[in-house]
Amino acid sequence: MAGLHVRSVLVTGANRGIGLGFVQHFLRMPNPPQWIFAGCRDPKGQRELQNLASKHPNIIIIPLEVSDPASIKAAAAKVGERLGGSGLNLLINNAGIAKPCSLDNETPENMIQVYTTNTVGPMLMGQAFLPLLKKAAQGSPGSGLSCSKAAIINMSSYAGSIEDMYVWEFGQVVSYRCSKAALNMLSKCQSLAYKEHGILCITFHPGWVQTDMGAPGQIPWRMLKVLSSISEKEAGAFLDWEGKVVPW
Amino acid sequence: MAGLHVRSVLVTGANRGIGLGFVQHFLRMPNPPQWIFAGCRDPKGQRELQNLASKHPNIIIIPLEVSDPASIKAAAAKVGERLGGSGLNLLINNAGIAKPCSLDNETPENMIQVYTTNTVGPMLMGQAFLPLLKKAAQGSPGSGLSCSKAAIINMSSYAGSIEDMYVWEFGQVVSYRCSKAALNMLSKCQSLAYKEHGILCITFHPGWVQTDMGAPGQIPWRMLKVLSSISEKEAGAFLDWEGKVVPW
Repeated sequence: MAGLHVRSVLVTGANRGIGLGFVQHFLRMPNPPQWIFAGCRDPKGQRELQNLASKHPNIIIIPLEVSDPASIKAAAAKVGERLGGSGLNLLINNAGIAKPCSLDNETPENMIQVYTTNTVGPMLMGQAFLPLLKKAAQGSPGSGLSCSKAAIINMSSYAGSIEDMYVWEFGQVVSYRCSKAALNMLSKCQSLAYKEHGILCITFHPGWVQTDMGAPGQIPWRMLKVLSSISEKEAGAFLDWEGKVVPW
Repeated sequence: MAGLHVRSVLVTGANRGIGLGFVQHFLRMPNPPQWIFAGCRDPKGQRELQNLASKHPNIIIIPLEVSDPASIKAAAAKVGERLGGSGLNLLINNAGIAKPCSLDNETPENMIQVYTTNTVGPMLMGQAFLPLLKKAAQGSPGSGLSCSKAAIINMSSYAGSIEDMYVWEFGQVVSYRCSKAALNMLSKCQSLAYKEHGILCITFHPGWVQTDMGAPGQIPWRMLKVLSSISEKEAGAFLDWEGKVVPW
């Protein structure tokens, strides 16, 4: 983790699972961020996150529904205000939904709802936070790309790999798979469009975790280790929690 | 083309471009299909297709808006009625839309509209025509998969390749790229789910054509040549008009 020096980070879906795990592991870093923005849909109902924030004043809980453009804009304004004149180093688009369904039972409503949250949401987040990410990149020394400077990390899934249809027999989840393949494409587009602004963009397979459990173990820690080591060589890549490339 | 013997085919978006080209080339085959169902949104306004249908009674124009589930159901009922007791051999999901946009200007409305037509539409088409495709597969001899027996061909695009971001500088079209990457995932899902029913599913890059021109040349003919030669080995593949594999 020695290589990761983040002054500010925003994690979406930070109330549970991997999102909450990220917040916890950022706190445990030898040099924790000055600002940890924890985005979640319903801040009031999130006891674990609220407890954490009451003990750590660097955690700022931000109401955020990534399927709602107005909510995203409001969140960007709030984060910008807190940051004063400085930028946002790291945006972790972690919020996502899944609808268990076979291909036979998949519906247009499922397809659109999952796509709106898992794919359109991260696109809008990138657009809304671009000024703050740019500012962070401009304020950081050096010409290379890194997560310490400015980065967008999109949380995808191995289930979004078209090449390797892992666990197909276990769950067809077509709406989820399509949304994650599209998210991988979005990440590639973001990496190409935002590199001129000094922003590193990658897409991530976090490993298989029980996301409903409060403490998903070592996964976020391993991911932070990967994030600490990547640079422009990895721009646009699809990596797993060990840093290995996942096939598209 | 010697290997392609199709009794019935449905082409969506058949009023122009590649869709119309498919209809024309099916007519020119030494053994043309007994039924060529030409799906299009607004049958009345399509003079070229209407002229063709007035000369060739095996062309049946079907009103079809692939972004509308009710329209898809009505089309499936109409096609089933015409076919009497027999099945549909070939479903070519060709209808699609694009919205020219850079990543900076991309909107949720664009993203959802393009996904609804380009990704959700082919999924619903597969569901609605599955009984007719199954019937065609059951009525065909042999155990292997082929386009002469029963197949779904999804018209994708090289712009849906995440690996090779071809013509990025020419057009970012994020909504289109995301919808086509998702369509490629859908095709893989369809190929896995429908192979047990004897249905071959692939996704296709048609080559670069001026789709607004009535006669897009030799592209559909080349694609029909590829379709005549593929079997279960190619199930779930992303092929171009020369039969070459396109990277995901």
